[in-house]
Amino acid sequence: MTRKVDILDSTLRDGAQAEGISFSVEDKIKIVKTLDELGVSYIEAGNPGSNPKDIEFFKRMQSIELKNARLAAFGSTRRRDITVEEDNNVQSLLSAGTPVIVIFGKSWDFHVTDVIKTTLEENLNMIRETVAFFKKRNKEVIFDAEHFYDGYKANPEYAFKALQAAVEGGADCLVLCDTNGGSFPNEVYEITKRVTETFKVKIGIHTHNDGGMAVANSIMAVEAGASHVQGTYLGFGERCGNANLSTIIPNLQLKKGIQCIPKDKMVMLTHAARKIAEIANVTMNERDPYVGNSAFAHKGGMHIDGVAKATRSFEHVDPDLVGNKRRFLMSEVAGRRTILDKIREICPSVTKESSETEAIINRLKELEHQGYQFEGAESTFELIIRKQLGKYRPFFELESFKLITEQPTQSRPSASALIKVKVDGKAEITAAEGDGPVHALDRALRKALEVFYPELSSVHLTDFKVRVIDSKSATAAKVRVLIESTDGETVWTTVGVSTDIIEASWIALVDSIEYKLIKDLEKKIRVYL
Amino acid sequence: MTRKVDILDSTLRDGAQAEGISFSVEDKIKIVKTLDELGVSYIEAGNPGSNPKDIEFFKRMQSIELKNARLAAFGSTRRRDITVEEDNNVQSLLSAGTPVIVIFGKSWDFHVTDVIKTTLEENLNMIRETVAFFKKRNKEVIFDAEHFYDGYKANPEYAFKALQAAVEGGADCLVLCDTNGGSFPNEVYEITKRVTETFKVKIGIHTHNDGGMAVANSIMAVEAGASHVQGTYLGFGERCGNANLSTIIPNLQLKKGIQCIPKDKMVMLTHAARKIAEIANVTMNERDPYVGNSAFAHKGGMHIDGVAKATRSFEHVDPDLVGNKRRFLMSEVAGRRTILDKIREICPSVTKESSETEAIINRLKELEHQGYQFEGAESTFELIIRKQLGKYRPFFELESFKLITEQPTQSRPSASALIKVKVDGKAEITAAEGDGPVHALDRALRKALEVFYPELSSVHLTDFKVRVIDSKSATAAKVRVLIESTDGETVWTTVGVSTDIIEASWIALVDSIEYKLIKDLEKKIRVYL
Repeated sequence: MTRKVDILDSTLRDGAQAEGISFSVEDKIKIVKTLDELGVSYIEAGNPGSNPKDIEFFKRMQSIELKNARLAAFGSTRRRDITVEEDNNVQSLLSAGTPVIVIFGKSWDFHVTDVIKTTLEENLNMIRETVAFFKKRNKEVIFDAEHFYDGYKANPEYAFKALQAAVEGGADCLVLCDTNGGSFPNEVYEITKRVTETFKVKIGIHTHNDGGMAVANSIMAVEAGASHVQGTYLGFGERCGNANLSTIIPNLQLKKGIQCIPKDKMVMLTHAARKIAEIANVTMNERDPYVGNSAFAHKGGMHIDGVAKATRSFEHVDPDLVGNKRRFLMSEVAGRRTILDKIREICPSVTKESSETEAIINRLKELEHQGYQFEGAESTFELIIRKQLGKYRPFFELESFKLITEQPTQSRPSASALIKVKVDGKAEITAAEGDGPVHALDRALRKALEVFYPELSSVHLTDFKVRVIDSKSATAAKVRVLIESTDGETVWTTVGVSTDIIEASWIALVDSIEYKLIKDLEKKIRVYL
Repeated sequence: MTRKVDILDSTLRDGAQAEGISFSVEDKIKIVKTLDELGVSYIEAGNPGSNPKDIEFFKRMQSIELKNARLAAFGSTRRRDITVEEDNNVQSLLSAGTPVIVIFGKSWDFHVTDVIKTTLEENLNMIRETVAFFKKRNKEVIFDAEHFYDGYKANPEYAFKALQAAVEGGADCLVLCDTNGGSFPNEVYEITKRVTETFKVKIGIHTHNDGGMAVANSIMAVEAGASHVQGTYLGFGERCGNANLSTIIPNLQLKKGIQCIPKDKMVMLTHAARKIAEIANVTMNERDPYVGNSAFAHKGGMHIDGVAKATRSFEHVDPDLVGNKRRFLMSEVAGRRTILDKIREICPSVTKESSETEAIINRLKELEHQGYQFEGAESTFELIIRKQLGKYRPFFELESFKLITEQPTQSRPSASALIKVKVDGKAEITAAEGDGPVHALDRALRKALEVFYPELSSVHLTDFKVRVIDSKSATAAKVRVLIESTDGETVWTTVGVSTDIIEASWIALVDSIEYKLIKDLEKKIRVYL
């Protein structure tokens, strides 16, 4: 029988404690649906005692049915020296109406005496009684033993007493927390092992990444017998973050054969990561294992060559298994084969020996020498190939533009652009203002072209990067401008290089627009043919 | 006696294989100096056989002396079926002129037969002979056993034979590589243990992060007896990156008592991280352990409360030990001591209680909120303090400037600037052309001011960096411009932030000129007093 581990995602609770993260109720509902679709066992979605937004969220959730996951509300043991019934936070937790309650309590003696300032005995009562309160009300209760590893190192008997109190209260699962994130894998293994050997109830692990080892520590706990893993889907969390579930799930499921989510959902891992990042409005770490954009990106020539011969030569797993894809980066260290593959996507008849191949490679080398870099700018790369193959026609001509920036300026925007373009012999002249010359130029160009190509109204830029290539020539240095655009459906990136930042931006802007128009045209052709 | 581990930083070699990373020769030299200052044992700085840029870099390095680190060049074993002497890459490696050579070779039988397509015996010859070639030329030779862990799992005897061949060639250190980054901590521990028990030579570890466990795997190897750790300072590298040294060093040194760098350099860890990120022109991962901006940022109310009572309640180490700082995200109380030290350099009478201190801190916070960052821009920082202390007078007033950029342009330069400044009531109007608007503006400003301050003729800009701060708003995003200037004697850096790149550049240019004029004035005063 396949071994199973329960996954508890806390993106909406511990993840919300990360710097720069702030979820609306609407965001939270979208993330709950994404995680439920993915098939995690538990979604710890908020702390109703700590803020009114979470109270509203849980109220909304009462009318939403989940397909796979059980919803959990998170809160503390009762405060000291009162009854459980008297505690407002406990009452808020109850009114959240979730089937699962996660209660955290102290297991490090120093925290009991110096932070919450009560007796060691009273803390055990707080744990036991709070857990029992929810068990009596038919809740599934998960007990998070805060600072368990630090507590165990300081006073192992007391740390065990805290777990024992939760068991006496009827807890369904005891979760060992490395709250400060500083434990080492072998410590986690050994301490967890002692717990799983002592307690008969289900044991869980909750780690933080302050030593950069949250994933490894979670894995080591599972090796020691834990069967419940807490984390956040992209590793968001207080300080350095929580254990990253998008890494742990494939580590356990693909490589250890331990089931975390339904088998057929594994291919959704990458999509879920991007979706959650999008909802959270954060840029994903591109180097994230399994789900990052660079996770299967090969750059070194020998690596590309090796992967072409056998993918396992430089890949620990097949990217398809997690819904990600292999990428060969276009760079001075990439080989001819990568380029040929790309050429064939556009023109399948081209071979390694074709004269076009040579011409394209020479053109690319020339551009790279000028400072172009095509990794991350596949759309410009495609346009260059098209131009060389003759599979390109310009969608417009620039007659002229003129940009003016002045200081002092009465009010923002500070720059204005005047532009004249021609499409099929018909001219359009227009102007726009912007915050700086590039912004003004971008606006003016799209304003002029929308007259001819209304589909451009759906396009907007989502990223703009400037890299000074040879900074030694200071303000006359060459710059490379990278632009990311979207029409709401797809995302594409283009690049321009010049000693003049305006010109570099212009080149990338033109490519962005032409790429969109070519793709739309191709779509139309496919419909008619 | 304290246990020691050698650190080999490969930011400039394996790190350069990361997506989005491209170092100029100048960048590489700056990073070498930063790492040398930090006190790592080895800097693996390039692969001279793979590209001409690295050849130029190593030539430049021959006239630069390092204080702590030994420079290493990286390359492959000789190709199959030729002599070592006949191999061009080996010859390039030799001509790099470094005291240390890192040779990588195959230790996974499948790679020998299916990727480099030779016999198992010939691969062992390639390893033995290449190592011996460099040992005969008095090089320190580190042998990187590529794919060692995967190789060991597939064919342990052959993996050991590859190590044995390197030992026979005279290798000083055998490095076990988890090239595909998919190994687990307990595997790494057990396999490394077998190696350290078998071979008497120094054993090293080189891990990748495809399973999110590169740091933990490195630590486990050290636990198993490895005494040489390879990684990249910020974890840059192929795919998901290499082991992050800025995490490993404090993990080992602060928490295991194993020395990696000189004790007094530990406080430089955070500064070095930001400096390397700045040179590489990448945004640091704010959640990076120890050195990230969020590493000691507390957001949850209970966490802030706990830390206020006792820092160890929610911090695994003291941020001061790594030169980082604690931040309370709701009620900011940033590094007051650092700021006070800087204020006292300019005005020794100021104390912690002075009203000026409060005013300066508020001003700095306000600027940081706007996107300023003073890490690499100490001159702007000093000017801000001077302005708050009243120890500043403007050296000129801008009446107005006007920048014009046009396309098409008959010839380069493509931009022109018209500027009017006033010094002591006397106006000067002038114009200049440049390659792009910033270049034209820089030239026009200095041309106008040289009339009044001839000493400015010695000033020129040596570096110019543009960083988009919030790239999500695309061309209307905020940019931070960093300018480095020199008068041939000293070098200073200034910074400007705006949504308009012209304005951001202008702010940094003005600061650069004013800083020079203040320093010259101070020099004169010192001469006369």
